[in-house]
Amino acid sequence: MTTDLDGSYKVTPVTKVRRLPARSTYEKLQIDEIFEEGLTCHVAFVANGRPCCIPMAYAKLEDKLYVHGSIASRLLKSMKGGLEVCITVTLLDGLVLARSGFHHSMNYRSVMAFGTAEPVTDEGEKERVLAAMVDHIIPGRNAQIRQPTPAELRATSLLALQLEEVSAKVRTGPPKDDEADYALPVWAGTLPLSTAVAGSPEADPRLPASTEMPSNVREYSRKPAAS
Amino acid sequence: MTTDLDGSYKVTPVTKVRRLPARSTYEKLQIDEIFEEGLTCHVAFVANGRPCCIPMAYAKLEDKLYVHGSIASRLLKSMKGGLEVCITVTLLDGLVLARSGFHHSMNYRSVMAFGTAEPVTDEGEKERVLAAMVDHIIPGRNAQIRQPTPAELRATSLLALQLEEVSAKVRTGPPKDDEADYALPVWAGTLPLSTAVAGSPEADPRLPASTEMPSNVREYSRKPAAS
Repeated sequence: MTTDLDGSYKVTPVTKVRRLPARSTYEKLQIDEIFEEGLTCHVAFVANGRPCCIPMAYAKLEDKLYVHGSIASRLLKSMKGGLEVCITVTLLDGLVLARSGFHHSMNYRSVMAFGTAEPVTDEGEKERVLAAMVDHIIPGRNAQIRQPTPAELRATSLLALQLEEVSAKVRTGPPKDDEADYALPVWAGTLPLSTAVAGSPEADPRLPASTEMPSNVREYSRKPAAS
Repeated sequence: MTTDLDGSYKVTPVTKVRRLPARSTYEKLQIDEIFEEGLTCHVAFVANGRPCCIPMAYAKLEDKLYVHGSIASRLLKSMKGGLEVCITVTLLDGLVLARSGFHHSMNYRSVMAFGTAEPVTDEGEKERVLAAMVDHIIPGRNAQIRQPTPAELRATSLLALQLEEVSAKVRTGPPKDDEADYALPVWAGTLPLSTAVAGSPEADPRLPASTEMPSNVREYSRKPAAS
């Protein structure tokens, strides 16, 4: 088992947060929210002895994180029994404007997952994951599009990471200034940022004008309506 | 020299883009724009033999990329003669909604810089870099705040990466569907995303109500007004 009974990931030597541990969490619910809101992850791995960091699309299904990107096929070729990775999803929530440069910061939520990613070879699993990836990016989209062919499934490289060693860091709230600095006539506070705000959809130039735009495109919003 | 005469980074075995090379660029101007617009980077390195990927704040000064984050001090302790890194800045510009799942994609701009990051020890350089980091996040801010003390400069860990091995990938434009799929009655196109949209500034609860909010906070916009 990789989680405690209370729904947290186990703290291991790899995931133990040493710097500012008060900002850390291992709670599955909070970590799931970060995975759900994020659109891309950054995947770190070692290639030819050197660290490499690549943005990829992802989806979480049950207790696995799946990644997919243009580099995946090249990665897979260099894999012998899996590829050791660190996958990080970061959401930037705001700028923290303090009275000194030293206390400037950012409000963010970031999750890191460590482990050995394995190629997905089963065609049924691939199909399920690709559907989840499309729906992760834009909910309801998979039911609206042409489904994958066997050749497309074979041509798609997916990596799966079992979520075992996972931790998150979260910063919220106003700046924390040195006590003496609160007397300074400097504006201080936070500037909230939204990180995936949809503009006006742009129809493909080859789309017939009669094609109706579905509501999940027209009303796209990354955050749930309640937030 | 690390650049060609035409203002591009040299293509090396490390930075040569093998997958979809048509999307790659080594042009300094385009790469500088990505560095300028981004707020955070992801830094990959190897710790205890395992890849690690951490979000950090950064600033570019001349031909160096500087990173700063809560992990930096721990990293620096494990460094002997520099730390090999890959630093990636990714800007997500939109969702590419194709007629098949296979051709779904994202529009993005991403730059990767490889090399050995060195700790910054000179206090004058630290001060200059920290000022640039504050102004990178919010232009004009450094002149408005209390300047760093010698103790703060000593307590700040910065890493510097000489920009030599750098490449970028950029995807723009509508989906590229299979020819037969263009006849399908599926809405297709792109959904532009803005990735750092400012909400209403929230004053620090301890800020006197009389403190005026400066225009660089009130009118914060990540992109230049022209775009």
